Amino acid sequence: MKMLQDSMADAAEAVQDTLDNLLELGGDPEDRVVEAMRYACLGGGKRIRPFMVLTTADMFGVDREAALRCAAAMEMVHCYSLVHDDLPAMDDDDLRRGKATCHKEFDEATAILAGDGLLTKAFEVLAHNDTHGDARVRADLVLALAQAAGNRGMIGGQMLDIVAENTELNMPEITRMQRMKTGMLISVACEMGAILGKVHPSLRHALLAYANDLGLAFQIADDLLDVEGSSSAVGKKTGKDAAAGKATFISLVGVKRARNQAEILSDQAISHLEVFADKADLLRQLARFVVERDN
Amino acid sequence: MKMLQDSMADAAEAVQDTLDNLLELGGDPEDRVVEAMRYACLGGGKRIRPFMVLTTADMFGVDREAALRCAAAMEMVHCYSLVHDDLPAMDDDDLRRGKATCHKEFDEATAILAGDGLLTKAFEVLAHNDTHGDARVRADLVLALAQAAGNRGMIGGQMLDIVAENTELNMPEITRMQRMKTGMLISVACEMGAILGKVHPSLRHALLAYANDLGLAFQIADDLLDVEGSSSAVGKKTGKDAAAGKATFISLVGVKRARNQAEILSDQAISHLEVFADKADLLRQLARFVVERDN
Repeated sequence: MKMLQDSMADAAEAVQDTLDNLLELGGDPEDRVVEAMRYACLGGGKRIRPFMVLTTADMFGVDREAALRCAAAMEMVHCYSLVHDDLPAMDDDDLRRGKATCHKEFDEATAILAGDGLLTKAFEVLAHNDTHGDARVRADLVLALAQAAGNRGMIGGQMLDIVAENTELNMPEITRMQRMKTGMLISVACEMGAILGKVHPSLRHALLAYANDLGLAFQIADDLLDVEGSSSAVGKKTGKDAAAGKATFISLVGVKRARNQAEILSDQAISHLEVFADKADLLRQLARFVVERDN
Repeated sequence: MKMLQDSMADAAEAVQDTLDNLLELGGDPEDRVVEAMRYACLGGGKRIRPFMVLTTADMFGVDREAALRCAAAMEMVHCYSLVHDDLPAMDDDDLRRGKATCHKEFDEATAILAGDGLLTKAFEVLAHNDTHGDARVRADLVLALAQAAGNRGMIGGQMLDIVAENTELNMPEITRMQRMKTGMLISVACEMGAILGKVHPSLRHALLAYANDLGLAFQIADDLLDVEGSSSAVGKKTGKDAAAGKATFISLVGVKRARNQAEILSDQAISHLEVFADKADLLRQLARFVVERDN
Protein backbone atom coordinates (compact mmCIF):
# COMPACT_ATOMS: atom_id res chain seq x y z
CA MET A 1 0.00 0.00 0.00
CA LYS A 2 1.36 3.36 -1.03
CA MET A 3 1.91 5.60 1.97
CA LEU A 4 0.07 8.88 2.27
CA GLN A 5 3.03 11.08 3.17
CA ASP A 6 5.01 10.02 0.11
CA SER A 7 2.04 10.37 -2.18
CA MET A 8 1.27 13.82 -0.85
CA ALA A 9 4.87 14.91 -1.27
CA ASP A 10 4.93 13.59 -4.85
CA ALA A 11 1.65 15.30 -5.65
CA ALA A 12 2.78 18.59 -4.12
CA GLU A 13 5.93 18.55 -6.22
CA ALA A 14 4.10 17.74 -9.45
CA VAL A 15 1.50 20.43 -8.81
CA GLN A 16 4.24 22.92 -8.02
CA ASP A 17 5.82 22.23 -11.42
CA THR A 18 2.48 22.53 -13.18
CA LEU A 19 1.71 25.84 -11.49
CA ASP A 20 5.18 27.04 -12.34
CA ASN A 21 4.54 26.27 -16.02
CA LEU A 22 1.03 27.67 -16.15
CA LEU A 23 1.96 30.93 -14.42
CA GLU A 24 4.68 31.77 -16.86
CA LEU A 25 6.58 35.05 -16.64
CA GLY A 26 6.87 36.95 -19.90
CA GLY A 27 9.24 39.78 -19.00
CA ASP A 28 6.65 42.52 -19.56
CA PRO A 29 6.11 45.32 -17.04
CA GLU A 30 2.63 43.99 -16.18
CA ASP A 31 4.28 40.74 -15.07
CA ARG A 32 4.30 42.20 -11.59
CA VAL A 33 0.84 40.69 -11.26
CA VAL A 34 2.13 37.30 -12.44
CA GLU A 35 4.89 37.53 -9.87
CA ALA A 36 2.28 38.14 -7.19
CA MET A 37 0.18 35.24 -8.51
CA ARG A 38 3.24 33.01 -8.36
CA TYR A 39 4.11 34.25 -4.89
CA ALA A 40 0.63 33.32 -3.70
CA CYS A 41 0.65 29.89 -5.34
CA LEU A 42 4.19 28.57 -5.37
CA GLY A 43 5.06 29.14 -1.74
CA GLY A 44 4.09 25.77 -0.42
CA GLY A 45 1.03 24.77 1.53
CA LYS A 46 -0.13 21.23 2.04
CA ARG A 47 -1.77 21.02 -1.40
CA ILE A 48 -4.57 18.93 0.02
CA ARG A 49 -7.07 19.96 -2.65
CA PRO A 50 -4.74 19.18 -5.57
CA PHE A 51 -3.92 15.88 -3.89
CA MET A 52 -7.63 15.05 -3.85
CA VAL A 53 -7.90 15.81 -7.57
CA LEU A 54 -4.87 13.68 -8.42
CA THR A 55 -5.88 10.81 -6.15
CA THR A 56 -9.45 10.56 -7.43
CA ALA A 57 -8.20 10.93 -11.01
CA ASP A 58 -5.79 8.03 -10.44
CA MET A 59 -8.65 5.88 -9.19
CA PHE A 60 -10.25 6.15 -12.62
CA GLY A 61 -7.12 5.94 -14.75
CA VAL A 62 -7.27 9.56 -15.87
CA ASP A 63 -4.40 10.95 -17.91
CA ARG A 64 -1.84 12.48 -15.53
CA GLU A 65 -1.43 15.73 -17.46
CA ALA A 66 -5.18 16.39 -17.42
CA ALA A 67 -5.36 15.70 -13.70
CA LEU A 68 -2.40 17.96 -12.97
CA ARG A 69 -3.96 20.87 -14.85
CA CYS A 70 -7.16 20.44 -12.86
CA ALA A 71 -5.21 20.14 -9.63
CA ALA A 72 -3.37 23.35 -10.44
CA ALA A 73 -6.62 25.17 -11.28
CA MET A 74 -8.05 23.99 -7.99
CA GLU A 75 -5.04 25.34 -6.09
CA MET A 76 -5.24 28.66 -7.94
CA VAL A 77 -8.80 29.13 -6.70
CA HIS A 78 -7.80 28.16 -3.17
CA CYS A 79 -4.85 30.57 -3.22
CA TYR A 80 -6.88 33.42 -4.72
CA SER A 81 -9.34 33.04 -1.86
CA LEU A 82 -6.49 33.26 0.66
CA VAL A 83 -5.01 36.36 -0.99
CA HIS A 84 -8.33 38.21 -0.89
CA ASP A 85 -9.17 36.87 2.56
CA ASP A 86 -5.90 38.22 3.97
CA LEU A 87 -6.53 41.78 2.69
CA PRO A 88 -6.81 44.58 5.27
CA ALA A 89 -10.52 45.02 4.50
CA MET A 90 -11.09 41.32 5.15
CA ASP A 91 -9.08 39.38 7.78
CA ASP A 92 -6.11 41.77 7.70
CA ASP A 93 -3.45 39.10 8.07
CA ASP A 94 0.29 39.67 7.73
CA LEU A 95 1.40 36.05 7.83
CA ARG A 96 0.44 33.09 5.63
CA ARG A 97 2.26 29.78 5.30
CA GLY A 98 5.05 31.33 7.35
CA LYS A 99 5.60 34.14 4.86
CA ALA A 100 4.38 37.71 4.45
CA THR A 101 0.90 37.75 2.92
CA CYS A 102 0.62 38.85 -0.71
CA HIS A 103 -0.45 42.43 -0.02
CA LYS A 104 2.39 42.79 2.51
CA GLU A 105 4.97 41.46 0.08
CA PHE A 106 3.60 43.50 -2.85
CA ASP A 107 0.81 46.00 -2.14
CA GLU A 108 -2.95 45.93 -1.80
CA ALA A 109 -3.78 46.84 -5.40
CA THR A 110 -1.43 44.15 -6.72
CA ALA A 111 -2.87 41.60 -4.30
CA ILE A 112 -6.44 42.34 -5.41
CA LEU A 113 -5.41 41.95 -9.05
CA ALA A 114 -3.37 38.82 -8.32
CA GLY A 115 -6.40 37.18 -6.71
CA ASP A 116 -8.58 38.17 -9.66
CA GLY A 117 -5.92 36.87 -12.02
CA LEU A 118 -5.67 33.50 -10.29
CA LEU A 119 -9.43 32.99 -10.32
CA THR A 120 -9.60 33.88 -14.01
CA LYS A 121 -6.61 31.70 -14.87
CA ALA A 122 -8.18 28.69 -13.17
CA PHE A 123 -11.14 28.82 -15.54
CA GLU A 124 -8.87 29.39 -18.51
CA VAL A 125 -6.90 26.27 -17.64
CA LEU A 126 -10.02 24.13 -17.20
CA ALA A 127 -11.63 25.32 -20.44
CA HIS A 128 -8.48 24.78 -22.50
CA ASN A 129 -8.28 21.91 -24.94
CA ASP A 130 -5.11 20.64 -23.25
CA THR A 131 -7.11 19.72 -20.15
CA HIS A 132 -9.42 17.24 -21.86
CA GLY A 133 -10.29 16.30 -25.43
CA ASP A 134 -13.99 16.11 -24.61
CA ALA A 135 -15.49 19.61 -24.42
CA ARG A 136 -18.33 18.36 -22.26
CA VAL A 137 -15.81 17.40 -19.59
CA ARG A 138 -14.20 20.83 -19.82
CA ALA A 139 -17.54 22.63 -19.51
CA ASP A 140 -18.50 20.36 -16.59
CA LEU A 141 -15.24 21.15 -14.78
CA VAL A 142 -15.80 24.88 -15.19
CA LEU A 143 -19.39 24.63 -14.04
CA ALA A 144 -18.59 22.52 -10.99
CA LEU A 145 -15.78 24.81 -9.89
CA ALA A 146 -17.76 28.01 -10.51
CA GLN A 147 -20.72 26.73 -8.51
CA ALA A 148 -18.50 25.65 -5.62
CA ALA A 149 -16.52 28.90 -5.57
CA GLY A 150 -19.38 31.34 -6.20
CA ASN A 151 -22.01 33.16 -4.19
CA ARG A 152 -23.83 29.92 -3.35
CA GLY A 153 -20.50 28.38 -2.36
CA MET A 154 -17.23 29.76 -1.08
CA ILE A 155 -18.00 33.47 -1.67
CA GLY A 156 -21.37 33.04 0.05
CA GLY A 157 -19.63 31.31 2.95
CA GLN A 158 -17.15 34.13 3.33
CA MET A 159 -19.96 36.66 3.27
CA LEU A 160 -21.82 34.65 5.88
CA ASP A 161 -18.69 34.57 8.04
CA ILE A 162 -18.57 38.38 7.97
CA VAL A 163 -22.30 38.87 8.44
CA ALA A 164 -22.18 36.45 11.39
CA GLU A 165 -19.51 38.42 13.23
CA ASN A 166 -22.17 40.13 15.28
CA THR A 167 -24.49 37.16 15.70
CA GLU A 168 -24.25 34.02 17.77
CA LEU A 169 -24.44 31.16 15.27
CA ASN A 170 -25.81 27.84 16.40
CA MET A 171 -24.42 24.46 15.36
CA PRO A 172 -26.46 23.99 12.16
CA GLU A 173 -25.63 27.54 11.08
CA ILE A 174 -21.91 27.06 11.68
CA THR A 175 -22.04 23.77 9.82
CA ARG A 176 -23.75 25.43 6.87
CA MET A 177 -21.26 28.29 6.84
CA GLN A 178 -18.27 25.94 6.91
CA ARG A 179 -19.83 23.76 4.25
CA MET A 180 -20.07 26.79 1.96
CA LYS A 181 -16.80 28.42 2.94
CA THR A 182 -14.46 25.46 2.64
CA GLY A 183 -16.50 22.28 2.17
CA MET A 184 -17.75 22.90 -1.34
CA LEU A 185 -14.29 23.49 -2.75
CA ILE A 186 -13.11 20.27 -1.10
CA SER A 187 -16.08 18.49 -2.64
CA VAL A 188 -15.27 19.71 -6.11
CA ALA A 189 -11.64 18.66 -5.63
CA CYS A 190 -12.82 15.11 -5.00
CA GLU A 191 -15.36 15.33 -7.81
CA MET A 192 -12.90 16.40 -10.48
CA GLY A 193 -11.35 12.96 -10.84
CA ALA A 194 -14.82 11.55 -11.46
CA ILE A 195 -15.65 14.26 -14.01
CA LEU A 196 -12.36 13.68 -15.83
CA GLY A 197 -12.92 9.92 -15.77
CA LYS A 198 -16.54 10.24 -16.95
CA VAL A 199 -17.56 7.69 -14.35
CA HIS A 200 -21.05 6.56 -13.41
CA PRO A 201 -22.94 9.16 -11.31
CA SER A 202 -23.17 6.72 -8.40
CA LEU A 203 -19.38 6.79 -8.05
CA ARG A 204 -19.36 10.58 -8.28
CA HIS A 205 -21.94 10.68 -5.51
CA ALA A 206 -19.93 8.33 -3.31
CA LEU A 207 -16.96 10.68 -3.64
CA LEU A 208 -19.12 13.68 -2.85
CA ALA A 209 -20.46 11.99 0.28
CA TYR A 210 -16.88 11.26 1.34
CA ALA A 211 -15.84 14.84 0.63
CA ASN A 212 -18.79 16.28 2.49
CA ASP A 213 -17.87 14.53 5.75
CA LEU A 214 -14.17 15.06 5.18
CA GLY A 215 -14.62 18.79 4.61
CA LEU A 216 -16.39 19.18 7.90
CA ALA A 217 -13.80 17.10 9.75
CA PHE A 218 -11.09 19.19 8.12
CA GLN A 219 -12.72 22.41 9.30
CA ILE A 220 -13.09 21.24 12.89
CA ALA A 221 -9.44 20.18 12.85
CA ASP A 222 -8.57 23.65 11.56
CA ASP A 223 -10.51 25.24 14.40
CA LEU A 224 -8.70 22.99 16.88
CA LEU A 225 -5.36 24.11 15.46
CA ASP A 226 -6.48 27.71 15.81
CA VAL A 227 -7.09 27.04 19.52
CA GLU A 228 -4.24 24.67 20.29
CA GLY A 229 -1.58 25.17 17.62
CA SER A 230 1.36 27.51 17.83
CA SER A 231 1.67 30.24 15.24
CA SER A 232 5.07 28.97 14.13
CA ALA A 233 3.85 25.41 13.49
CA VAL A 234 0.65 26.49 11.76
CA GLY A 235 2.36 29.22 9.74
CA LYS A 236 -0.31 31.82 10.34
CA LYS A 237 -1.68 33.71 13.31
CA THR A 238 -3.56 31.45 15.74
CA GLY A 239 -6.14 32.19 18.40
CA LYS A 240 -7.88 34.49 15.96
CA ASP A 241 -11.38 33.09 16.22
CA ALA A 242 -11.45 33.42 19.99
CA ALA A 243 -10.00 36.94 19.81
CA ALA A 244 -12.69 37.91 17.29
CA GLY A 245 -15.35 36.37 19.53
CA LYS A 246 -16.40 34.10 16.65
CA ALA A 247 -18.56 31.11 17.37
CA THR A 248 -16.88 27.91 16.19
CA PHE A 249 -17.55 24.22 16.77
CA ILE A 250 -15.19 24.49 19.69
CA SER A 251 -16.68 27.56 21.35
CA LEU A 252 -20.01 25.74 21.25
CA VAL A 253 -19.09 22.21 22.37
CA GLY A 254 -15.55 22.46 23.73
CA VAL A 255 -12.27 20.94 22.59
CA LYS A 256 -12.94 17.38 23.65
CA ARG A 257 -16.30 16.96 21.96
CA ALA A 258 -15.09 18.81 18.88
CA ARG A 259 -12.16 16.43 18.53
CA ASN A 260 -14.49 13.50 19.00
CA GLN A 261 -16.85 14.88 16.35
CA ALA A 262 -13.98 15.27 13.87
CA GLU A 263 -13.06 11.63 14.36
CA ILE A 264 -16.64 10.48 13.88
CA LEU A 265 -16.83 12.48 10.65
CA SER A 266 -13.56 11.00 9.48
CA ASP A 267 -14.91 7.46 10.05
CA GLN A 268 -18.11 8.38 8.32
CA ALA A 269 -16.21 9.76 5.33
CA ILE A 270 -14.33 6.48 5.02
CA SER A 271 -17.56 4.49 5.14
CA HIS A 272 -18.63 5.99 1.79
CA LEU A 273 -15.59 4.56 0.04
CA GLU A 274 -16.51 0.87 0.24
CA VAL A 275 -17.54 0.70 -3.42
CA PHE A 276 -13.97 1.56 -4.47
CA ALA A 277 -12.38 -1.29 -2.44
CA ASP A 278 -8.61 -0.88 -2.10
CA LYS A 279 -8.47 1.70 -4.87
CA ALA A 280 -9.49 4.28 -2.27
CA ASP A 281 -6.79 3.49 0.27
CA LEU A 282 -5.13 6.87 -0.10
CA LEU A 283 -8.44 8.63 0.45
CA ARG A 284 -8.91 6.58 3.62
CA GLN A 285 -5.48 7.56 4.87
CA LEU A 286 -6.24 11.15 3.97
CA ALA A 287 -9.38 11.09 6.09
CA ARG A 288 -7.28 9.98 9.06
CA PHE A 289 -4.60 12.53 8.30
CA VAL A 290 -6.82 15.62 8.22
CA VAL A 291 -7.98 15.07 11.79
CA GLU A 292 -4.53 14.11 13.12
CA ARG A 293 -2.32 16.76 11.47
CA ASP A 294 -0.60 19.38 13.60
CA ASN A 295 -0.39 22.16 11.01
CA MET B 1 -32.73 50.40 -41.03
CA LYS B 2 -33.12 49.84 -37.32
CA MET B 3 -31.84 52.80 -35.37
CA LEU B 4 -29.00 52.38 -32.93
CA GLN B 5 -30.54 54.22 -29.99
CA ASP B 6 -33.66 52.05 -30.02
CA SER B 7 -31.66 48.87 -30.41
CA MET B 8 -29.37 49.81 -27.57
CA ALA B 9 -32.29 50.65 -25.32
CA ASP B 10 -33.99 47.33 -26.16
CA ALA B 11 -30.77 45.42 -25.53
CA ALA B 12 -30.13 47.21 -22.24
CA GLU B 13 -33.60 46.34 -21.01
CA ALA B 14 -33.33 42.69 -22.02
CA VAL B 15 -29.90 42.37 -20.41
CA GLN B 16 -31.19 44.02 -17.27
CA ASP B 17 -33.94 41.38 -17.04
CA THR B 18 -31.48 38.57 -17.64
CA LEU B 19 -29.10 39.86 -14.97
CA ASP B 20 -32.03 40.25 -12.60
CA ASN B 21 -32.93 36.58 -13.13
CA LEU B 22 -29.38 35.24 -12.95
CA LEU B 23 -28.53 37.16 -9.78
CA GLU B 24 -31.43 35.80 -7.83
CA LEU B 25 -31.88 36.61 -4.16
CA GLY B 26 -32.55 33.65 -1.92
CA GLY B 27 -33.37 35.27 1.40
CA ASP B 28 -30.33 33.84 3.20
CA PRO B 29 -28.06 35.99 5.38
CA GLU B 30 -25.19 35.60 2.90
CA ASP B 31 -27.39 37.25 0.26
CA ARG B 32 -25.77 40.51 1.25
CA VAL B 33 -23.14 39.63 -1.33
CA VAL B 34 -25.82 39.00 -3.96
CA GLU B 35 -27.34 42.38 -3.13
CA ALA B 36 -23.94 43.98 -3.71
CA MET B 37 -23.53 42.05 -6.98
CA ARG B 38 -26.96 43.27 -8.09
CA TYR B 39 -26.15 46.81 -7.02
CA ALA B 40 -23.02 46.72 -9.16
CA CYS B 41 -24.77 45.22 -12.20
CA LEU B 42 -28.34 46.44 -12.27
CA GLY B 43 -27.72 50.15 -11.83
CA GLY B 44 -27.60 51.07 -15.49
CA GLY B 45 -24.61 51.88 -17.63
CA LYS B 46 -24.64 51.98 -21.41
CA ARG B 47 -24.40 48.18 -21.75
CA ILE B 48 -22.18 48.56 -24.78
CA ARG B 49 -20.50 45.18 -24.35
CA PRO B 50 -23.77 43.26 -23.98
CA PHE B 51 -25.09 45.16 -26.98
CA MET B 52 -22.10 43.90 -28.99
CA VAL B 53 -22.83 40.32 -27.96
CA LEU B 54 -26.50 40.59 -28.88
CA THR B 55 -25.86 42.38 -32.15
CA THR B 56 -23.22 39.96 -33.40
CA ALA B 57 -25.38 37.03 -32.26
CA ASP B 58 -28.30 38.43 -34.26
CA MET B 59 -26.12 38.63 -37.35
CA PHE B 60 -25.74 34.86 -37.23
CA GLY B 61 -29.26 33.93 -36.17
CA VAL B 62 -28.24 32.80 -32.69
CA ASP B 63 -30.97 31.88 -30.21
CA ARG B 64 -31.92 34.97 -28.22
CA GLU B 65 -31.77 33.28 -24.82
CA ALA B 66 -28.23 32.01 -25.42
CA ALA B 67 -27.11 35.44 -26.55
CA LEU B 68 -28.70 37.13 -23.54
CA ARG B 69 -26.94 34.80 -21.12
CA CYS B 70 -23.60 35.56 -22.77
CA ALA B 71 -24.36 39.28 -22.79
CA ALA B 72 -25.15 39.12 -19.08
CA ALA B 73 -21.93 37.19 -18.34
CA MET B 74 -20.01 39.81 -20.29
CA GLU B 75 -21.57 42.60 -18.26
CA MET B 76 -20.85 40.77 -14.99
CA VAL B 77 -17.15 40.71 -15.83
CA HIS B 78 -17.21 44.36 -16.83
CA CYS B 79 -18.98 45.31 -13.59
CA TYR B 80 -16.70 43.18 -11.41
CA SER B 81 -13.72 45.03 -12.88
CA LEU B 82 -15.35 48.36 -12.04
CA VAL B 83 -16.12 47.29 -8.45
CA HIS B 84 -12.53 46.23 -7.81
CA ASP B 85 -11.12 49.20 -9.73
CA ASP B 86 -13.08 51.63 -7.55
CA LEU B 87 -11.71 50.19 -4.27
CA PRO B 88 -9.66 52.48 -2.01
CA ALA B 89 -6.49 50.48 -2.73
CA MET B 90 -7.05 50.93 -6.47
CA ASP B 91 -8.63 54.11 -7.93
CA ASP B 92 -10.43 55.04 -4.70
CA ASP B 93 -13.60 56.32 -6.39
CA ASP B 94 -16.79 57.29 -4.60
CA LEU B 95 -18.99 57.80 -7.64
CA ARG B 96 -19.89 55.43 -10.49
CA ARG B 97 -22.73 55.78 -12.96
CA GLY B 98 -23.97 58.64 -10.83
CA LYS B 99 -24.32 56.49 -7.72
CA ALA B 100 -22.15 55.62 -4.73
CA THR B 101 -19.56 52.99 -5.65
CA CYS B 102 -20.12 49.48 -4.31
CA HIS B 103 -17.72 49.74 -1.37
CA LYS B 104 -19.27 53.09 -0.40
CA GLU B 105 -22.81 51.70 -0.52
CA PHE B 106 -21.83 48.46 1.26
CA ASP B 107 -18.30 48.14 2.61
CA GLU B 108 -14.90 47.16 1.28
CA ALA B 109 -15.03 43.50 2.26
CA THR B 110 -18.45 43.09 0.66
CA ALA B 111 -17.28 44.88 -2.48
CA ILE B 112 -14.25 42.60 -2.83
CA LEU B 113 -16.48 39.54 -2.44
CA ALA B 114 -19.12 40.97 -4.80
CA GLY B 115 -16.49 41.45 -7.50
CA ASP B 116 -15.19 37.92 -6.96
CA GLY B 117 -18.75 36.62 -7.04
CA LEU B 118 -19.56 38.37 -10.33
CA LEU B 119 -16.44 37.05 -12.03
CA THR B 120 -17.20 33.52 -10.84
CA LYS B 121 -20.86 33.77 -11.81
CA ALA B 122 -19.96 34.85 -15.34
CA PHE B 123 -18.09 31.60 -15.92
CA GLU B 124 -20.86 29.59 -14.30
CA VAL B 125 -23.38 31.12 -16.70
CA LEU B 126 -21.23 30.46 -19.77
CA ALA B 127 -20.48 26.85 -18.81
CA HIS B 128 -24.10 26.01 -18.06
CA ASN B 129 -26.07 23.83 -20.41
CA ASP B 130 -28.76 26.53 -20.76
CA THR B 131 -26.29 28.74 -22.63
CA HIS B 132 -25.67 26.36 -25.52
CA GLY B 133 -26.40 22.73 -26.29
CA ASP B 134 -22.94 22.22 -27.77
CA ALA B 135 -20.36 21.84 -24.99
CA ARG B 136 -17.59 22.90 -27.35
CA VAL B 137 -19.26 26.28 -27.72
CA ARG B 138 -19.56 26.60 -23.95
CA ALA B 139 -15.89 25.73 -23.38
CA ASP B 140 -14.89 28.16 -26.16
CA LEU B 141 -16.89 30.96 -24.55
CA VAL B 142 -15.24 30.35 -21.18
CA LEU B 143 -11.78 30.20 -22.72
CA ALA B 144 -12.23 33.37 -24.77
CA LEU B 145 -13.55 35.34 -21.82
CA ALA B 146 -10.91 34.04 -19.40
CA GLN B 147 -8.09 34.91 -21.79
CA ALA B 148 -9.45 38.40 -22.39
CA ALA B 149 -10.06 39.10 -18.71
CA GLY B 150 -6.91 37.51 -17.29
CA ASN B 151 -3.31 38.46 -16.65
CA ARG B 152 -2.54 38.66 -20.37
CA GLY B 153 -5.68 40.75 -20.86
CA MET B 154 -7.69 43.05 -18.63
CA ILE B 155 -5.91 42.21 -15.34
CA GLY B 156 -2.54 42.67 -17.03
CA GLY B 157 -3.71 46.00 -18.41
CA GLN B 158 -4.80 47.19 -14.98
CA MET B 159 -1.47 46.14 -13.52
CA LEU B 160 0.33 47.97 -16.31
CA ASP B 161 -1.75 51.06 -15.60
CA ILE B 162 -0.57 51.00 -11.97
CA VAL B 163 3.05 50.16 -12.78
CA ALA B 164 3.08 52.99 -15.33
CA GLU B 165 2.00 55.63 -12.83
CA ASN B 166 5.59 56.63 -12.31
CA THR B 167 6.76 56.25 -15.88
CA GLU B 168 6.12 58.30 -18.98
CA LEU B 169 4.50 55.92 -21.46
CA ASN B 170 4.93 56.55 -25.15
CA MET B 171 2.20 56.07 -27.75
CA PRO B 172 2.80 52.36 -28.52
CA GLU B 173 2.94 51.62 -24.79
CA ILE B 174 -0.31 53.47 -24.10
CA THR B 175 -1.95 51.70 -27.03
CA ARG B 176 -0.83 48.33 -25.69
CA MET B 177 -2.06 49.13 -22.20
CA GLN B 178 -5.48 50.24 -23.43
CA ARG B 179 -5.72 47.22 -25.70
CA MET B 180 -5.20 44.97 -22.68
CA LYS B 181 -7.20 46.99 -20.19
CA THR B 182 -10.37 47.55 -22.18
CA GLY B 183 -9.82 46.44 -25.77
CA MET B 184 -9.66 42.71 -25.22
CA LEU B 185 -12.96 42.58 -23.37
CA ILE B 186 -14.59 44.55 -26.20
CA SER B 187 -13.08 42.10 -28.66
CA VAL B 188 -14.51 39.11 -26.87
CA ALA B 189 -17.91 40.83 -26.71
CA CYS B 190 -17.90 41.04 -30.50
CA GLU B 191 -16.50 37.52 -30.82
CA MET B 192 -19.18 35.86 -28.70
CA GLY B 193 -21.85 36.08 -31.40
CA ALA B 194 -19.48 34.31 -33.79
CA ILE B 195 -18.65 31.61 -31.24
CA LEU B 196 -22.34 31.05 -30.50
CA GLY B 197 -23.13 30.96 -34.22
CA LYS B 198 -20.23 28.59 -34.96
CA VAL B 199 -19.34 30.70 -37.98
CA HIS B 200 -16.36 30.37 -40.27
CA PRO B 201 -13.11 31.66 -38.68
CA SER B 202 -12.80 34.34 -41.38
CA LEU B 203 -16.00 35.97 -40.11
CA ARG B 204 -14.78 35.75 -36.52
CA HIS B 205 -11.57 37.45 -37.57
CA ALA B 206 -13.43 40.22 -39.37
CA LEU B 207 -15.35 40.93 -36.16
CA LEU B 208 -12.15 40.91 -34.14
CA ALA B 209 -10.53 43.38 -36.52
CA TYR B 210 -13.58 45.62 -36.15
CA ALA B 211 -13.49 45.28 -32.37
CA ASN B 212 -9.79 46.00 -32.20
CA ASP B 213 -10.14 49.38 -33.89
CA LEU B 214 -13.40 50.12 -32.13
CA GLY B 215 -11.91 49.41 -28.71
CA LEU B 216 -9.12 51.89 -29.27
CA ALA B 217 -11.52 54.53 -30.60
CA PHE B 218 -13.70 53.90 -27.56
CA GLN B 219 -10.79 54.45 -25.21
CA ILE B 220 -9.68 57.69 -26.85
CA ALA B 221 -13.28 58.91 -26.65
CA ASP B 222 -13.27 57.99 -22.96
CA ASP B 223 -10.09 59.97 -22.41
CA LEU B 224 -11.64 62.94 -24.22
CA LEU B 225 -14.66 62.74 -21.92
CA ASP B 226 -12.32 62.67 -18.94
CA VAL B 227 -10.79 65.93 -20.17
CA GLU B 228 -13.87 67.67 -21.58
CA GLY B 229 -16.90 66.10 -19.95
CA SER B 230 -18.63 67.27 -16.81
CA SER B 231 -18.81 64.94 -13.84
CA SER B 232 -22.62 65.08 -13.82
CA ALA B 233 -22.96 64.08 -17.49
CA VAL B 234 -20.33 61.35 -17.32
CA GLY B 235 -21.57 60.01 -13.96
CA LYS B 236 -18.12 59.63 -12.45
CA LYS B 237 -15.29 61.91 -11.46
CA THR B 238 -13.64 63.58 -14.47
CA GLY B 239 -10.25 65.19 -14.91
CA LYS B 240 -8.71 62.24 -13.06
CA ASP B 241 -6.02 61.32 -15.54
CA ALA B 242 -4.64 64.84 -15.67
CA ALA B 243 -4.75 65.13 -11.87
CA ALA B 244 -2.89 61.84 -11.57
CA GLY B 245 -0.34 63.04 -14.12
CA LYS B 246 -1.14 59.99 -16.26
CA ALA B 247 -0.01 59.93 -19.84
CA THR B 248 -2.98 59.42 -22.19
CA PHE B 249 -3.46 59.76 -25.93
CA ILE B 250 -4.51 63.32 -25.23
CA SER B 251 -1.61 64.34 -23.03
CA LEU B 252 0.69 63.11 -25.81
CA VAL B 253 -0.96 64.49 -28.94
CA GLY B 254 -3.56 67.00 -27.73
CA VAL B 255 -7.35 67.07 -27.94
CA LYS B 256 -7.64 67.83 -31.63
CA ARG B 257 -5.38 65.10 -32.93
CA ALA B 258 -6.81 62.62 -30.44
CA ARG B 259 -10.33 63.33 -31.69
CA ASN B 260 -9.12 62.97 -35.26
CA GLN B 261 -7.45 59.67 -34.42
CA ALA B 262 -10.65 58.33 -32.84
CA GLU B 263 -12.54 59.15 -36.02
CA ILE B 264 -9.96 57.46 -38.20
CA LEU B 265 -10.14 54.35 -36.03
CA SER B 266 -13.92 54.40 -36.22
CA ASP B 267 -13.78 54.49 -40.04
CA GLN B 268 -11.20 51.76 -40.03
CA ALA B 269 -13.38 49.61 -37.78
CA ILE B 270 -16.26 49.99 -40.21
CA SER B 271 -14.06 49.01 -43.15
CA HIS B 272 -13.70 45.49 -41.71
CA LEU B 273 -17.45 44.90 -41.87
CA GLU B 274 -17.85 44.79 -45.65
CA VAL B 275 -18.19 41.02 -45.73
CA PHE B 276 -21.39 41.25 -43.67
CA ALA B 277 -23.09 43.74 -46.04
CA ASP B 278 -26.17 45.36 -44.45
CA LYS B 279 -26.31 42.78 -41.67
CA ALA B 280 -23.66 44.85 -39.88
CA ASP B 281 -25.48 48.18 -40.03
CA LEU B 282 -25.90 48.37 -36.29
CA LEU B 283 -22.20 47.73 -35.77
CA ARG B 284 -21.46 50.56 -38.19
CA GLN B 285 -23.73 52.91 -36.29
CA LEU B 286 -22.11 51.76 -33.06
CA ALA B 287 -18.66 52.68 -34.39
CA ARG B 288 -19.95 56.20 -35.08
CA PHE B 289 -21.66 56.38 -31.72
CA VAL B 290 -18.68 55.52 -29.54
CA VAL B 291 -16.67 58.47 -30.82
CA GLU B 292 -19.60 60.91 -30.77
CA ARG B 293 -21.16 60.09 -27.37
CA ASP B 294 -21.10 62.68 -24.60
CA ASN B 295 -21.18 60.31 -21.64
